[in-house]
Amino acid sequence: MTDYKKLWESLDMDLEKHEQLCNLLPDFFAEVYLSQENRPEGMNYFNLVVSSIHGLRPEELKRHRDSGGKVVGTFCVYVPDELIFAAGAIGIGLCGGSQFWVADGERVLPKNTCPLIKSFMGAKITKTCPYFQSCDLLVGETTCDGKKKAWEIMKNYADIHVMHLPQMKRDIDLRAWSHELEILKERLEELTGNEITPSKLKDAIKLINEKRKALRRLYELRKANPVPISGKDALLVTQIAFYDDPERFTSKVNSLCDELEERVKLGKGVFPSGTKRIIITGTPMAIPNWKLHHIVETSGAAVVCEETCTGTRYFENLVDEELDTLEAQIMAMSERYMKTNCACFTPNQGRIDDIIRLVREYKADGVIYYNLQFCQPYAVEYELVRQALQREGIPVLFIETDYSENDSGQIKTRVQAFLEMLG
Amino acid sequence: MTDYKKLWESLDMDLEKHEQLCNLLPDFFAEVYLSQENRPEGMNYFNLVVSSIHGLRPEELKRHRDSGGKVVGTFCVYVPDELIFAAGAIGIGLCGGSQFWVADGERVLPKNTCPLIKSFMGAKITKTCPYFQSCDLLVGETTCDGKKKAWEIMKNYADIHVMHLPQMKRDIDLRAWSHELEILKERLEELTGNEITPSKLKDAIKLINEKRKALRRLYELRKANPVPISGKDALLVTQIAFYDDPERFTSKVNSLCDELEERVKLGKGVFPSGTKRIIITGTPMAIPNWKLHHIVETSGAAVVCEETCTGTRYFENLVDEELDTLEAQIMAMSERYMKTNCACFTPNQGRIDDIIRLVREYKADGVIYYNLQFCQPYAVEYELVRQALQREGIPVLFIETDYSENDSGQIKTRVQAFLEMLG
Ligand code: SF4
Ligand code: SF4
Ligand code: SF4
Ligand code: SF4
Repeated sequence: MTDYKKLWESLDMDLEKHEQLCNLLPDFFAEVYLSQENRPEGMNYFNLVVSSIHGLRPEELKRHRDSGGKVVGTFCVYVPDELIFAAGAIGIGLCGGSQFWVADGERVLPKNTCPLIKSFMGAKITKTCPYFQSCDLLVGETTCDGKKKAWEIMKNYADIHVMHLPQMKRDIDLRAWSHELEILKERLEELTGNEITPSKLKDAIKLINEKRKALRRLYELRKANPVPISGKDALLVTQIAFYDDPERFTSKVNSLCDELEERVKLGKGVFPSGTKRIIITGTPMAIPNWKLHHIVETSGAAVVCEETCTGTRYFENLVDEELDTLEAQIMAMSERYMKTNCACFTPNQGRIDDIIRLVREYKADGVIYYNLQFCQPYAVEYELVRQALQREGIPVLFIETDYSENDSGQIKTRVQAFLEMLG
Repeated sequence: MTDYKKLWESLDMDLEKHEQLCNLLPDFFAEVYLSQENRPEGMNYFNLVVSSIHGLRPEELKRHRDSGGKVVGTFCVYVPDELIFAAGAIGIGLCGGSQFWVADGERVLPKNTCPLIKSFMGAKITKTCPYFQSCDLLVGETTCDGKKKAWEIMKNYADIHVMHLPQMKRDIDLRAWSHELEILKERLEELTGNEITPSKLKDAIKLINEKRKALRRLYELRKANPVPISGKDALLVTQIAFYDDPERFTSKVNSLCDELEERVKLGKGVFPSGTKRIIITGTPMAIPNWKLHHIVETSGAAVVCEETCTGTRYFENLVDEELDTLEAQIMAMSERYMKTNCACFTPNQGRIDDIIRLVREYKADGVIYYNLQFCQPYAVEYELVRQALQREGIPVLFIETDYSENDSGQIKTRVQAFLEMLG
């Protein structure tokens, strides 16, 4: 990876600390991913993207910026990539999934903060993430308390625009969100110097819809029994969706799906037949957070779907592509985004309905509710999810954890007991 | 207290469990309050209110309800009492301050939730709080994640209307809040069958303003050196403001202030001269949460002001009384409430300015930042407050705690070290 040293220098990175980080990933990735059997050929591209995660794509971002383009970092699937790309900028999801950064995040944030937030904050203040360093603007949002307040501290380190996300989903909130999209549009036009025209926005809507359709196709294939791809691999694909070039990503996912379709036709799966099928629901899993999937899939079960923001919530629902005025396009975007059922909203019955529907569609045997420690919206919502699943006779296991490996053994024991109980 | 047994039965209370609670309070109150020296005579009324907390006022609420009136419970100083009283209803603040209810709250909420929320939830689900049991409607709000999501669970136990509080303070948010006040107005009119007219609202605005003015007068007197009233006593007065009859309360506070004015004239204080003056800032202290004040004031210092919602945030800023249309009155209320600087907003620079201003006005020697455990908005905001106070040369101590007494010894040690450092 030393070829990228110049790139990293140009991004004002802490090279020494960054090297420590780079030294950790290959072994970790080999242990969790390359050890799997029956992997699809189509995963090779995604392996490559991970193995050069701090070089390949950051190099592209640099080329884009060197020729006058802008890069915009985001932290929530509510922030619309369509507007960013329509302005000629590149959008990058920046949620932190590595324990490496947590201790540094704790220098400015309370320990009682969700690890995702501590991780991205640590990444920024230590200057060890080339994606963060490539951003000309960050876009935050008022979702959970942790993020809502973290932007105030982030402001000491970077330019940040904060979107006011409503906490409910009434008509008035839908209109309020479309207004926020308009404010963001203006901010992006200012940043890039490019006007967002209806035709550019139309193209961007299509671009992002195509990505969603490819992921939707991938997830459809996971409904097959036996399942043609591991949950870990599917998770990796979704994680990469947040920062890869959308067009290339879409075509690579579609190639992967072609291969998986063949598998399904042949009845070929990655796991032995009879393997228990698990849906994971809850908080996002940012790269390289593969902890729970790894535990489940080395305990003899398969993860067949994620009802998370690094799962179905990322790609479900499309934006209407047939509209020709900015006003109509922005309202259509507001409608599409407000369909995402995040626990930051109250009430959030839609998520409960989604989980039950997904259990049926994916013929899942049980649900694991994944909660990042100190994430209050999802933790409180568990009580209502639990009650609803109980009424439906769907087994559920609650796992609250952070990014460390300290509790992995204990979680494995609980997961195994849960799987045995599924019979 | 057995005279009230019939009352409690009529409120569908759990009498056995309630008795356990009633047995705890008198000794606790005697230890914390009655042990103080030089207390003003005017505190006798407030002692009485506490000693009959589950009888006197609930009896009044019952009489009000028996004659067709309604009682409305609230959990945040953003919810406008003016509208509630203008509808002929009685508003009662329901934030829970007792450890007694925490374990029951944890039956339906994550342990990682702030004790205030767990406490009020436990109070409701165990049916051991006569105030909760007297409410015909609860009004929640989307402030912090914990409360925002707790309402969904509370809905299983009580009627609740949730107000959408904006998370920012731009012009558009001010208008959005006035819209929420209108929705609440309609809901209250429906509940009570009473129309809220401009003249009734005017009266209610005056009623609540008078309460604020009395508290403001009390706090003004605490600026005197030596201070004429203990922090514990002043805190108790503010706590009682949340549920006492506003008119009687106002007159009792004003009588107390008359007495304190005499003391100030005579240069008479409750503590020896030279006593260090402390401002507490942070999360609210609902009755009977006297923990930190008790520690500070038994460690040789005086609490002279609280920048909290059971302190200055409760009574600062008045609503314009001279308006004659509902539209103007509601906008004036929106403006007044949006001046309250709660950490649930982003950004919240106003609070930092307030703290620094109060330190000057009250000639404080130091600040203790009080954080209820797992309250993320205030915990994250500490970092920026700390930085600002450091720039101003104002010493600050961060105390995060819950309602248990487990850490009292440790907190006392830290407070004493802090006070010594003040020199
Ligand atoms: S969980 Fe909620 S706040 Fe987090 S990325 Fe998803 S939508 Fe955004
Ligand atoms: S996991 Fe929860 S606490 Fe963490 S960023 Fe997402 S919503 Fe916020
Ligand atoms: S601290 Fe904030 S949420 Fe709590 S009562 Fe005060 S204004 Fe309301
Ligand atoms: S103290 Fe903090 S967490 Fe608790 S109710 Fe108030 S704002 Fe919410």
